[in-house]
Amino acid sequence: MHICSTDIENLNKLTRVNLINSLSGFKSANLIGTKDKHGQENLSIVSSVFHIGANPPLIGMIIRPHSVPRHTLENIIETGSYTINHVNADIFEQAHQTSARYDKNISEFDAVGLQAEYKGTFTAPFVLQSKLKMAVKLVSTQTIELNQTELVIGQITDIFLEDELAYCHDGFVDLERLNTVALSGLDKYHTTTAIARLSYAKCDKPLSHIETSPKSEA
Amino acid sequence: MHICSTDIENLNKLTRVNLINSLSGFKSANLIGTKDKHGQENLSIVSSVFHIGANPPLIGMIIRPHSVPRHTLENIIETGSYTINHVNADIFEQAHQTSARYDKNISEFDAVGLQAEYKGTFTAPFVLQSKLKMAVKLVSTQTIELNQTELVIGQITDIFLEDELAYCHDGFVDLERLNTVALSGLDKYHTTTAIARLSYAKCDKPLSHIETSPKSEA
Repeated sequence: MHICSTDIENLNKLTRVNLINSLSGFKSANLIGTKDKHGQENLSIVSSVFHIGANPPLIGMIIRPHSVPRHTLENIIETGSYTINHVNADIFEQAHQTSARYDKNISEFDAVGLQAEYKGTFTAPFVLQSKLKMAVKLVSTQTIELNQTELVIGQITDIFLEDELAYCHDGFVDLERLNTVALSGLDKYHTTTAIARLSYAKCDKPLSHIETSPKSEA
Repeated sequence: MHICSTDIENLNKLTRVNLINSLSGFKSANLIGTKDKHGQENLSIVSSVFHIGANPPLIGMIIRPHSVPRHTLENIIETGSYTINHVNADIFEQAHQTSARYDKNISEFDAVGLQAEYKGTFTAPFVLQSKLKMAVKLVSTQTIELNQTELVIGQITDIFLEDELAYCHDGFVDLERLNTVALSGLDKYHTTTAIARLSYAKCDKPLSHIETSPKSEA
């Protein structure tokens, strides 16, 4: 089956949005926690969080223009800080519900039934029910001129892992143990089943499977 | 368990790479097919392909500096065109093996045992064994100055879907039907199991589950 440029252009808006959103493959599902300078909380699901680099530890996300998570972007720019919280299978419906267009003076935490958690001196709220959460410091925002989306890059300053056994001997985090979900398209949520962890690929050596054990048992 | 900035800095390189690569959540797994101007093929697995926008249909990816897939970036800039091919559970080992540092004059297709497929007038090679593949036209490259990675943005011009029943009534593509895999960390591959597709979230209405049927049966 071949869908060409003209076919894509001629699709109705919703069909095109569903189709194109499916093409990148599986996506991460994260909740972005922020607060404005007056203390108003905001929580927003984002499916475009991606790894940029390990040293310094940089993480990026795409924020759409003039769409729901715009309060998130305003708050991040206003305060320079935010949290990223993995969505797990116990909270995926509440997480999805944060994408509704709530007024700015409504906290999505309250509206969807998730609990804001404050840790140490961090001003941005974490999600209590999430099992892997990060404090992130804004590093840069840049507009992608082609469609006016915003690329937001932050540096991970702190990692909170609610299950120590998910932290493995070589630094790998076992997302399945945390029940972290994957997203496809705009709105489908999935749990995962491991096939294998593969060794570092070399030209002259066959791949082997890596067995992973918790760091705390090492 | 709390891992702070100083802890992250003090980790050995490999542990830090494994840890930070785990934090964004599940990732897409795609093979990027290119050719240089002399006709030399290249194939490279990339875990950072992400959706940017549906209209125009834009897709992004992060290419690391001076690392294995650099031939990919050179070829994309040289020819302006590339293919993106979903990795499925039947070819994840071959796909992973493309990350080995093969010389430029070696085609990763031959080295790992995948078959290059040419379609119509497209110069870049597709992966025969992939069930969802796209022809992409380069739109822009920009260096992320913070760590010298490259953000590559392309426009999807053509979509090839090997199983028509995966294309659903509302444009959604059923990635599970295609056996598309998800990645976590640097090197762990997963199949997925659907939990649910959720309706568009509204402030004043509870979510419902969307039942998806193939477009061809509509």
